[in-house]
Amino acid sequence: MSDYTPQPENKFTFGLWTVGNIGRDPFGGPVREQKTPADLVRLLGEVGAYGVNFHDNDLIPIDVMPSEAEAIKKDFREALDETGIVVPMATTNLFSDPIFKDGAFTSNDPKVRAYALQKTMNAIDLGVEFGAKIYVFWGGREGTETDSTKNPVEAIKRNREAMNFLCDYVRDQKYDLKFALEAKPNEPRGDIYNSTTGHMLAFIATLDHPEMVGVNPEVAHEHMAGLNFVHGVAQALEAGKLFHIDLNDQAFGRYDQDFRFGAVNLKSAFFLVKLLEDNKYDSSRHFDAHAYRTEDYEGVKDFARGCMRTYLILKEKAAQWNADKEIQALVAEINADDGSMGGYFGKYSSEKAKALKAQPFDRSAIAARGLQYERLDQLTVEVLLGVR
Amino acid sequence: MSDYTPQPENKFTFGLWTVGNIGRDPFGGPVREQKTPADLVRLLGEVGAYGVNFHDNDLIPIDVMPSEAEAIKKDFREALDETGIVVPMATTNLFSDPIFKDGAFTSNDPKVRAYALQKTMNAIDLGVEFGAKIYVFWGGREGTETDSTKNPVEAIKRNREAMNFLCDYVRDQKYDLKFALEAKPNEPRGDIYNSTTGHMLAFIATLDHPEMVGVNPEVAHEHMAGLNFVHGVAQALEAGKLFHIDLNDQAFGRYDQDFRFGAVNLKSAFFLVKLLEDNKYDSSRHFDAHAYRTEDYEGVKDFARGCMRTYLILKEKAAQWNADKEIQALVAEINADDGSMGGYFGKYSSEKAKALKAQPFDRSAIAARGLQYERLDQLTVEVLLGVR
Amino acid sequence: MSDYTPQPENKFTFGLWTVGNIGRDPFGGPVREQKTPADLVRLLGEVGAYGVNFHDNDLIPIDVMPSEAEAIKKDFREALDETGIVVPMATTNLFSDPIFKDGAFTSNDPKVRAYALQKTMNAIDLGVEFGAKIYVFWGGREGTETDSTKNPVEAIKRNREAMNFLCDYVRDQKYDLKFALEAKPNEPRGDIYNSTTGHMLAFIATLDHPEMVGVNPEVAHEHMAGLNFVHGVAQALEAGKLFHIDLNDQAFGRYDQDFRFGAVNLKSAFFLVKLLEDNKYDSSRHFDAHAYRTEDYEGVKDFARGCMRTYLILKEKAAQWNADKEIQALVAEINADDGSMGGYFGKYSSEKAKALKAQPFDRSAIAARGLQYERLDQLTVEVLLGVR
Amino acid sequence: MSDYTPQPENKFTFGLWTVGNIGRDPFGGPVREQKTPADLVRLLGEVGAYGVNFHDNDLIPIDVMPSEAEAIKKDFREALDETGIVVPMATTNLFSDPIFKDGAFTSNDPKVRAYALQKTMNAIDLGVEFGAKIYVFWGGREGTETDSTKNPVEAIKRNREAMNFLCDYVRDQKYDLKFALEAKPNEPRGDIYNSTTGHMLAFIATLDHPEMVGVNPEVAHEHMAGLNFVHGVAQALEAGKLFHIDLNDQAFGRYDQDFRFGAVNLKSAFFLVKLLEDNKYDSSRHFDAHAYRTEDYEGVKDFARGCMRTYLILKEKAAQWNADKEIQALVAEINADDGSMGGYFGKYSSEKAKALKAQPFDRSAIAARGLQYERLDQLTVEVLLGVR
Repeated sequence: MSDYTPQPENKFTFGLWTVGNIGRDPFGGPVREQKTPADLVRLLGEVGAYGVNFHDNDLIPIDVMPSEAEAIKKDFREALDETGIVVPMATTNLFSDPIFKDGAFTSNDPKVRAYALQKTMNAIDLGVEFGAKIYVFWGGREGTETDSTKNPVEAIKRNREAMNFLCDYVRDQKYDLKFALEAKPNEPRGDIYNSTTGHMLAFIATLDHPEMVGVNPEVAHEHMAGLNFVHGVAQALEAGKLFHIDLNDQAFGRYDQDFRFGAVNLKSAFFLVKLLEDNKYDSSRHFDAHAYRTEDYEGVKDFARGCMRTYLILKEKAAQWNADKEIQALVAEINADDGSMGGYFGKYSSEKAKALKAQPFDRSAIAARGLQYERLDQLTVEVLLGVR
Repeated sequence: MSDYTPQPENKFTFGLWTVGNIGRDPFGGPVREQKTPADLVRLLGEVGAYGVNFHDNDLIPIDVMPSEAEAIKKDFREALDETGIVVPMATTNLFSDPIFKDGAFTSNDPKVRAYALQKTMNAIDLGVEFGAKIYVFWGGREGTETDSTKNPVEAIKRNREAMNFLCDYVRDQKYDLKFALEAKPNEPRGDIYNSTTGHMLAFIATLDHPEMVGVNPEVAHEHMAGLNFVHGVAQALEAGKLFHIDLNDQAFGRYDQDFRFGAVNLKSAFFLVKLLEDNKYDSSRHFDAHAYRTEDYEGVKDFARGCMRTYLILKEKAAQWNADKEIQALVAEINADDGSMGGYFGKYSSEKAKALKAQPFDRSAIAARGLQYERLDQLTVEVLLGVR
Repeated sequence: MSDYTPQPENKFTFGLWTVGNIGRDPFGGPVREQKTPADLVRLLGEVGAYGVNFHDNDLIPIDVMPSEAEAIKKDFREALDETGIVVPMATTNLFSDPIFKDGAFTSNDPKVRAYALQKTMNAIDLGVEFGAKIYVFWGGREGTETDSTKNPVEAIKRNREAMNFLCDYVRDQKYDLKFALEAKPNEPRGDIYNSTTGHMLAFIATLDHPEMVGVNPEVAHEHMAGLNFVHGVAQALEAGKLFHIDLNDQAFGRYDQDFRFGAVNLKSAFFLVKLLEDNKYDSSRHFDAHAYRTEDYEGVKDFARGCMRTYLILKEKAAQWNADKEIQALVAEINADDGSMGGYFGKYSSEKAKALKAQPFDRSAIAARGLQYERLDQLTVEVLLGVR
Repeated sequence: MSDYTPQPENKFTFGLWTVGNIGRDPFGGPVREQKTPADLVRLLGEVGAYGVNFHDNDLIPIDVMPSEAEAIKKDFREALDETGIVVPMATTNLFSDPIFKDGAFTSNDPKVRAYALQKTMNAIDLGVEFGAKIYVFWGGREGTETDSTKNPVEAIKRNREAMNFLCDYVRDQKYDLKFALEAKPNEPRGDIYNSTTGHMLAFIATLDHPEMVGVNPEVAHEHMAGLNFVHGVAQALEAGKLFHIDLNDQAFGRYDQDFRFGAVNLKSAFFLVKLLEDNKYDSSRHFDAHAYRTEDYEGVKDFARGCMRTYLILKEKAAQWNADKEIQALVAEINADDGSMGGYFGKYSSEKAKALKAQPFDRSAIAARGLQYERLDQLTVEVLLGVR
C-alpha cells in the first residue's frame, strides 16, 4: 500500500474559488474569512497540490484599479514561485455581476454580449500571462427561467458566434491555448443551454475550429441530471475531446452540492478513476468542489487532502482490479470471441452483408448463457471495500 | 376557434406499439387483448391519424414462418390502402428478445452483435417495402447495470461500427432512407449509452456518413433526466438534424411513463409545439405513448384523439402568442438593439477585437434594466389558460 | 369571467423575504436594492395582498440595537395601518447566521441548541406582538452533509424536545398561536431531517401537544423530491393538519427554484387549487416565492400579481370543472355504486368478514370495464386550456 | 476478518419473487424459466438464507384449483422442513391481476375494494398457516395517473377503512401478526398514495389500532424520490415502528431498479447497516431485489450471496468505525458538552424559559469553531475502502 501522497504527475489542481470558498449559500452568510489569492496558493502548497486555476475575478476583483491589480498579480506570482504551484487553466466569470443576469453570450441585450466578449478577451490574456494552456468556459447564466423570454434557436447562434470569435482571437494572438466547455443542466438559471457534456460535444462539432475546443465535464453537473458520468466522459475521451475534468461529487437530482471527490458515490468515482487511468488521461485532475460550510480553514485543508487521497486510493484499486486473476478471468470469459463472426465486422461490403444475411443464429442458445455480471460486480464491490 | 380536426399536413403518426399496447407492466399482466396490425391501422384510421410506424416484430412476430409473414403483410397493406394511412417510419426491435439481454450492437458477445446487424438489415428491407423514409434506432439494451461489465469506450466503438455498416448498407441498396437515433438515459438498462439527444448528436458527428443520420428526440426520455426538452430539440433543429420526433409526456425523474401528449406539463408542450411550428418542422409528429392501463379500446381511441387535439390546440395558441400585440411589444422591447454594438459581432477581425477592447461599458446602467420577464411569462400563462 | 382581483377572503399573503428578495444566489450578487419592511408592506398594498409574514430578522436584523428595533417596528406598524395589511404568520430565521451552520435544534453543540430556543421564544413574542396566529418552523439547517457527523436518532429526539419546549412556552404565555412545520428534503444541507410533509406529520404525532401543531407544505419543497404535492396536502388536510400553505412552483428534482405560482406545472397547480377550494381551506394562501433575478421592482410587482391572478383563474376553472355536465357525468359513472357491496364496508364484524369471504367475484368482468380516464383527463386539460 | 457466512441471527430473508424473478421487464420477455416455490426454497437453502417470504400468488397462482393449491403447499412445506428455512413474512398481491388496474383498497369500484379485502383476508390466513408474524402491505396500484380521476381525500378514507377492517380481522382471529406498510412514490402508477415512509407513518397514526401497524421501508422506493433512506428508517426506528425492512439498492430518480444490496451506493448502505446494528434491530433483513436480467440461476445465487456478503462486510465495518480511536475521539469532540446549558433542556418550565431568555451567547465565538466534519467523513470513507 502506498501512503497516497500526491505527486506532480497526478496533476491535482484546485480553483482559487474552491479552497477560497467562504461558505455563503442561498440561505446563509459567509462562515470563513476571505483569503487572498496568494494565501490560497500557499494553502494549496501546504496540502500538496500541483496547480491552481482561477476566474479573472478570483484573482482581480471586477472593480479594482490597474495599480491594485498589478500588486495582486505580483503577490500571486510570488506565491506561485515560492510553492512551485503552476496555473494550468483559467476561466472567465460571466455569471456573478448583475450585468449577466440574463446571460453573457446569449443575453438578449447586445451590450451585454459585447461586454462578455471584451471581458473574456481580457481574461484570456490574464490566463495566458500566468501560463494557462486550457481555457474553460462555463456559461452559468446562459439559459432561461421560462422559454417565453429567449428564442432557443437564436441563443445557439449567439453562443456559436461568440465561441468562433474567441477561437479566432486566440489564433490571432498566437496563444498556445485550447478551450474546454463545461455543461450544467440548471442552477443558477432555471435551465441552462447545452445542458450536458453530450450537448456540448455536439455544439463543438458545429464550430469553425472544432479542433481547438473540447470539454470540461464535471461530476456534479452530470449527476444533477442523474446521468452516468463515466459514460459521458468516455464519449469525450474516445472523441479526443477530454481536455480537462472537474472532479467532485453529489447526489443525483439535487442542487449543486460540490462535495469532496468520492463523498457520495465511491463506486462511480472508482469507475471514473479507472477510466481516466486506463486511458492514460494526462491533463489536470481538477477538484471543483469546496469544504462543507461547517469547516474552518483546517477543515478546508482536510477537504483538499481528502479529494486527492480518495483519488489515489481509487487509482490503486483500479490497478488491483486490473491485476486480480479471478476478475480478469471473468472479463476474458465475458468478452470471449471464437472468431466465427469475424468476417462480418469492420468496413461494410456487399459480400459481407450478403453472407451475414445468410448466417443462421441459434437465438435461444445464445440467449441462454448466464453472463456472470452479478459475480463480477460483487468482486468489484469487494475490491472497493478492501476485503480482497 | 378551429374544431381541432387532424389534417394530413399535421403528419400525425402513431406506432403500432402505441395504440396496440396491451397494458402489461413490471407489476401486472395485460389488460387489453392483442389486436392485429391491420386492426390497429383501422383504429388509427377511425381517429384520424396520418401514418403508422412499426418495429419489425410489431408487424411480423420474431418466430413466424415466411408464409405467415406474407399473410400478415397482405392484411396490413390492405388496411393501409383502405384507410389511406401511410408508413413514414420503421424501426428494429433490438430489445425484447432474450438474446439482447446485454445489448445488441454493444453486446459483449460477437454473435449477438452480428445477429443484431442481420436483424436490422432485414428490418430495413421491410420498412422500405412499406415506404418508410425514416429509420429509427432506439438501442434500448445498449447499456449496463454496472460499469464492471462493459468497457464504455469499447461500447462506443462497437456502436459506431454498426451504424457505419448500416449506413453503407442503405447506400449500397440505394434506399431513400435516413436514420434517426433516439436517446434514453436508462430503463430498461441501469444506464443506457448516448443518454440524451445531445450525446446522440455528438456521436453522429463521428460517423462516416453524418449527413444521413439525425435524431429522434422523445419528450419522455429527456424528461426522465429532468432536461428542458425544448432546448435539446432546438439544438437538433438548428443543426439540421431533427429528422423525426416522439411526442408524449411524463414527470421528471421517473420511470418511462409514456403519457398522452400534454398530459403532464402543458407549458413545456406549448413551447415545443411553438418551436416546431415557428421553425416549420415538416416531418412526422409521432405520438410515442400509450393509453393508461385503466382503459379499454374506446379509451385507447380517446387517448389517440387527445394527443392530436392537444397538439392542435397548442398550435393555435402558438399562433395567438405570435399575434398578441402586448406580447409582441414586450418581445420587441426585450430584444431591442440600438445598433451601437453592431461593429463587434459577426466574423472576427483583429480590428474588431481591438475596438471592442477599447469600448467602455457602464455595467451598472446596463444591469439596472428590469427585463419584464415575469410579465411576459404571465401573459404566456394566460394565453395558455385561455383567458386572453 | 371575473377580473381576477384579489379579495380579502382569498387570504393572499407574502413573506417580507419574497417581494423583498434582492436576487443574490450562489453564483451572483444582488440585483435589486434592499427595501425596508415598511416599503415592502406598501408594495404589497399596491398589488392587493391581504397579509404579510416575516422571520424575526426580516423585520429586525440580528445585530440591531433595541432602540433601532423599536423604530423599525413603528415604521412597520404604520405601513400595516396605512395599507390594512395584516400579519397572519411569523417565523424564526434559524439558518442564516453562521452559528446555525450545523443546525439549530439538532446541532451537535448544546450552546447552539440553547440559543435556538432563546431566539425562537423571542421571535414568537415578536410575531404575537404583530397579531400572528400561525407560527411556522422551517429547520433549514437541521440535517447533514454526511451521516458520519450526526446521529439521526439523536437528532429526532433533540428536535422533539425543542418542539415540546416551545409548545409549552406558548401555552405558558397563553398565546393564541398554532405551529405549522415545514418540510424540505435538502438544500442548504445535503439532506434535511423530516424531509417531506409526510415525515413531518409523522413527527407531529409523537409530540406532547400534537393538537397545536400542523404542517406548512410548500409546493417547491415536495417537487424537489418529485412527489405529487396534491396527495401530500390532501393527507394533511384530511388529518386536520393543514394549518398553512406555501404556494410557488418548480421543476422536479432541482435546486430550490421558488418560482411564481403556476409558473412550471399548471395542471398540478389546478388540482391543488381545486383541492383547497373544494375542501374550504380557510387559512392563508401564502406565496413563498420570488421574482426572477432579471427583474427590477416593477417586475417584482408583476410577479406578485401573477401569483394571485393565476390562483384566481385556476379557482374559476375548478368551479367550471365542478359544473361541467359532461365531466360530472363521467365522474358519476366512474364512481358508480350499485350498493351490492355495501354490507362489507364500514366497521368490521365477524359476520361481515364471513359473508365477504363467501362472496363470489367475477374478476374478468370487473376488470374488463374501461374506466374512461383518458377521456376525463383530456376534458380536464381542455378546461385548463380554456377551449371548453 | 470473518468469512462473511450468513448466520441465523442475521435473519436474512428473500421473497419468492426475488430469487424467482424471471427477468421480464417493460421492454422484454423472460430470460429465466419459472421455478416452483419449493425449488426456490432449496435455492435459498443452498445460499444460506434464513427465511423466505411470499405473496399469496407467488405460492398459489390466482386461478389454481383447491386441490392443486394443497399440493403446492405440501411441496413448499417439505422444502421448508428440508432446508430449515422459515417464513417470517407474507403479503398479498393486490397489483398484478387486471381487476386491480385502478387500485385495490382505493379503487373507485366498490366491487374491487370488496374483493381486495376478501383476497387479503385469505392471504393473511395463508401467511399465518406458514408461520408469518409480519404481514406486509404494498399498495402498488393505490394511486393515479392523473388527479382528474380519483379524489385524494376519499382515497385516504378508503385506505384507512380497509386497514382498520383488516386489523380487526387479525384481532378477531387472534392471530399473532403485525402489519408493516410499505411506501413507494410511483411506478406502476403515475403517483402512488402515501408516497414515502414518512407519509405511511403519518397514516398509521390515524388508524384504530396503530400499535399493531408499523412500516416496511425499502431502499429503492425512497431512493426513487431521492431521499436519504437512513433518515427515514431512523424515524421509524425511533418511533418503534420499524417492523420489517426491504434491502436493495438503486440510483436516485429512476425507475424501480431493485439491484443487489450495496450495488449502487456503498456509503449510504454502510450508514444503514450501522443504524440497524447500533440500534439492535432484530426483525428480518429482507432482500427485496432481483438478479440482473443478464443472469442464469447461477447468477441468481451470486446475486443472493452478494446481498448477504455485502451486508456482513458493512456490519464488520460499522463495528470497526465504532472501535476506531481516532474516529471516536473526533465524535466525542464534536458532541462535547461542558454542561453549562444543561439547565435549559428537558421538560419546559417558566423558570427555565426565563433563565434562558436572559442567557448571553457569544454568537461569533460559537460559530467560529471548525467542526472537523470533512476529516471525520474522510476517515469514514477510508474505513469503507479498507485502507485503515
